[in-house]
Amino acid sequence: MTRLRPPASTTYGLDNLPYGVYSVPGQTPRVATRVGGQVIDLTLLLGEDVFARPSLNAFMAQGHQRWAQVRARLREAVSGDVPDPAVHDLADVTLHLPFEVTDYVDFYASEHHAANLGRLFRPDSAEPLLPNWKHMPVGYHGRTASIVVSGTDIVRPHGQRLPADAPAGSRPAPEFGPTRRLDVEAELGFVVGVGNPLGEPIGVTEAERHIFGVVLFNDWSARDIQAWEYVPLGPHLGKSFASTVSAWVVPMEALQAARVPTPTQEPGVLPYLALAEPWGLDIAVEIEWNGQVVSRPPYAAMYWSPAQMLAHLTANGAPTRTGDLFASGTISGPEREQRGAFVELTWGGTEPVEVAGEPRTFVEDGDEVVLRATAPGSDGGRIGFGEARGRILPAR
Amino acid sequence: MTRLRPPASTTYGLDNLPYGVYSVPGQTPRVATRVGGQVIDLTLLLGEDVFARPSLNAFMAQGHQRWAQVRARLREAVSGDVPDPAVHDLADVTLHLPFEVTDYVDFYASEHHAANLGRLFRPDSAEPLLPNWKHMPVGYHGRTASIVVSGTDIVRPHGQRLPADAPAGSRPAPEFGPTRRLDVEAELGFVVGVGNPLGEPIGVTEAERHIFGVVLFNDWSARDIQAWEYVPLGPHLGKSFASTVSAWVVPMEALQAARVPTPTQEPGVLPYLALAEPWGLDIAVEIEWNGQVVSRPPYAAMYWSPAQMLAHLTANGAPTRTGDLFASGTISGPEREQRGAFVELTWGGTEPVEVAGEPRTFVEDGDEVVLRATAPGSDGGRIGFGEARGRILPAR
Repeated sequence: MTRLRPPASTTYGLDNLPYGVYSVPGQTPRVATRVGGQVIDLTLLLGEDVFARPSLNAFMAQGHQRWAQVRARLREAVSGDVPDPAVHDLADVTLHLPFEVTDYVDFYASEHHAANLGRLFRPDSAEPLLPNWKHMPVGYHGRTASIVVSGTDIVRPHGQRLPADAPAGSRPAPEFGPTRRLDVEAELGFVVGVGNPLGEPIGVTEAERHIFGVVLFNDWSARDIQAWEYVPLGPHLGKSFASTVSAWVVPMEALQAARVPTPTQEPGVLPYLALAEPWGLDIAVEIEWNGQVVSRPPYAAMYWSPAQMLAHLTANGAPTRTGDLFASGTISGPEREQRGAFVELTWGGTEPVEVAGEPRTFVEDGDEVVLRATAPGSDGGRIGFGEARGRILPAR
Repeated sequence: MTRLRPPASTTYGLDNLPYGVYSVPGQTPRVATRVGGQVIDLTLLLGEDVFARPSLNAFMAQGHQRWAQVRARLREAVSGDVPDPAVHDLADVTLHLPFEVTDYVDFYASEHHAANLGRLFRPDSAEPLLPNWKHMPVGYHGRTASIVVSGTDIVRPHGQRLPADAPAGSRPAPEFGPTRRLDVEAELGFVVGVGNPLGEPIGVTEAERHIFGVVLFNDWSARDIQAWEYVPLGPHLGKSFASTVSAWVVPMEALQAARVPTPTQEPGVLPYLALAEPWGLDIAVEIEWNGQVVSRPPYAAMYWSPAQMLAHLTANGAPTRTGDLFASGTISGPEREQRGAFVELTWGGTEPVEVAGEPRTFVEDGDEVVLRATAPGSDGGRIGFGEARGRILPAR
């Protein structure tokens, strides 16, 4: 037996206890938690078969009462003597995509991000926000098959894009080639543990019982492909080549101390979107580009909350299922160094940032981008979200 | 043993042999084919466990050589003596969603549909088609969880929409309520049998080995919800409440006699979309509204082919999997009575059609809409696609 002794400064203490899926050579993947720098096998720790699986879906489907019970048992179990075979150093394991993604919606919930993109892409318009933006969390569906776990390399995608040197006002034919404007979007993703049947929306006050936890999410974006394709049906191949999620799902219950009011919503929202309790999240995100932190987007500045996103997503009776993922959209704060996408940070590529001494605009081959985040925990310290890491390989 | 004796006029003869999933009371769903008005259990007929499952996915994943081998064996087996317990009358079985949908993309492949919508929604523009339309099959992702099998009732969805009586040019606040402009979209859906790994696109000449078969697809659409939400990220809740697929998947191999050239593509397409063989499909679709056929959209008029859609969908390296579904978008021909959506057929609701003696524009509570289709078969007759049937229940 082992007594876990995480350092006092850890962001993976007893107030975090995230869930992930790990394997060691010769063993099939199964569910674990993380304490300090160690990964703890939950099948061995708690003696339950629901964790002897390659995804969290079976456990998540058991519902929010079970989530609370298991979390309480887990907190007790990792405080006592832990069976040696259950404990691995993080460096010795492979981490896998922690859940099977059944449907995926990406929202657009940051007012600063939406307004920045409006100014960049509709410079002649007096209103940076579109008319619907303050009335609903605008979102769209994306591809589930291309959601990959942190650490997966990202191949620069090909696609249709207009020639770089096309004269303004001309109508050039598109070319097909590797994207020239590869970007990141720093987001959080929310994982549905228990869904809703067809025709029965999830009320905004019921969201707590449906949302299992939170992941980091990098919605890699090829801006030139996206710009050419997206009217009128929205983004498709500019996004669908890959999205990176963190390997750890932080349970909503670990985020009680991070709950804050969302910014005032004016004009007032329709009743089906009206919050009864604070659903904002004081989560500090950072974007590291080739080892240098270039932006610190504050999640607390997000206009639309996850409860509102889920209520909107199902308001027409659309069903969700265990493993549904909805992401926040790019997190951008009011300041330049809080912008969550490089197209904003470098203002469409016109205002480079210095990365390791070089002026940079979009992501280049060989670059590595890592998202990280922390939030206040319940024990006075902070809790961590792992990382969403991706390195860019040249186009094939 | 039984000798099947389908009538000579059947559209479910030996040149069709579609795949579906059925159950009878007390038995779990499993795979079957249809001959005439009878459903034949494939586990009992062929003695293979891969069919003793509630979806086609395991069989589809075995690849196109297996599809051909099984089809040949099936044709032989249903021509001879068939074990009695394998045979059920269609009226005695329940048909289920035939495959597990892993990702879903809806395209926009009809030039007549895209041009009609351009004229309806952008009347001031000289060009009904947007600049990208002739260069790529434009498409977007949709929700897989709300794809239901033919016969499932459709509840009129709620959503945000602008007030019906808002003065032109005003900026009214949206209301939340049941859609007032519920519409259909007559489409075909293409089912991916074998997908592609992340980063390895499916070439347009390789599509044959990946596309398993074809279903009817009704992409129910709430036009008022869609109109308010869709800029800039595309359709979402105006579509995600439900889509109806037929219970039978017609194998691509059954459609050899239906293969025709697609319309001339001018300007020429980029090399990754260039077809080496005819990929158009001469499939005659019809839309029945409360028992009356109101439109006969010709699939042969579609501008973009399924091979091009699949090549485009994966051109950026996006992976597909067994059970991926991509739909064609509304099928509309050049004539009024060939339009595949009621918003086109009634020109935005301004030119009602007569249905059972009443002038009608959009779909009302209690209405039933059925899609059907036939194509030339290899034995000189025609083959059928079952139906995509849905009845509208009032909003809850």
